[in-house]
Amino acid sequence: MTDTTSDSAAELNWNEQGLVPAIAQDWQTGEVLMLAWMNRQALQLTLSEKRAIYWSRSRSALWRKGEQSGHVQKLHELRIDCDADTVLMKVEQVGDIACHTGRRSCFYQRWDNDHWQTTGPVLKSPEDIYRGQP
Amino acid sequence: MTDTTSDSAAELNWNEQGLVPAIAQDWQTGEVLMLAWMNRQALQLTLSEKRAIYWSRSRSALWRKGEQSGHVQKLHELRIDCDADTVLMKVEQVGDIACHTGRRSCFYQRWDNDHWQTTGPVLKSPEDIYRGQP
Repeated sequence: MTDTTSDSAAELNWNEQGLVPAIAQDWQTGEVLMLAWMNRQALQLTLSEKRAIYWSRSRSALWRKGEQSGHVQKLHELRIDCDADTVLMKVEQVGDIACHTGRRSCFYQRWDNDHWQTTGPVLKSPEDIYRGQP
Repeated sequence: MTDTTSDSAAELNWNEQGLVPAIAQDWQTGEVLMLAWMNRQALQLTLSEKRAIYWSRSRSALWRKGEQSGHVQKLHELRIDCDADTVLMKVEQVGDIACHTGRRSCFYQRWDNDHWQTTGPVLKSPEDIYRGQP
């Protein structure tokens, strides 16, 4: 039945690097947690394993979010936009920390009074998050 | 006082095309409405005019969201992420339609039962939105 196997990646408009941006949003609060990138395989694995799996552009490797920190993102819903070039996931953020800085969301810098202001408490120090990890 | 004028664009990590992805989120409901791109000028104009202004990659021109449709996005808050390579805006969506298809959000295709399912009503037809526009 290979002919009729639906391919989630087939309809997407991948960029010249074979990637699309993927937004992770808290499935309950709606808070936007982070944006990272996916290639075909990352998208397919995200859907089959029901957890966010990205493509790390800096490491040129699959990035199973939470593989070191434990801060896995369980997938509740996955959408694409009208141009099929962006992914939006509604996720359950294990540990309540999406950011490598130990904050809930990566979007903790807000433009305010003509400067970038840092907001959002550090819930756990990066040292504690990645302790003993390579 | 040029020396001390703070430049919102200075700290961002622009990609090789001089762009960053910019997410627009409803400031009240938290719904993610769309993702588009900004260059330096688009970011600076967005902050100064307090409305979302993107860079259209297809037209290679500034894109004042709503300039044709009237569906302006009034800026309530602007954030950047930990890597300073993504923008998140909280906006008030005029007309309650962000998508050129006439839907509230551009993210109306959901992966469900191994297929992309179209969700979300068309609130206004594209013909009506862009009637008489070039």
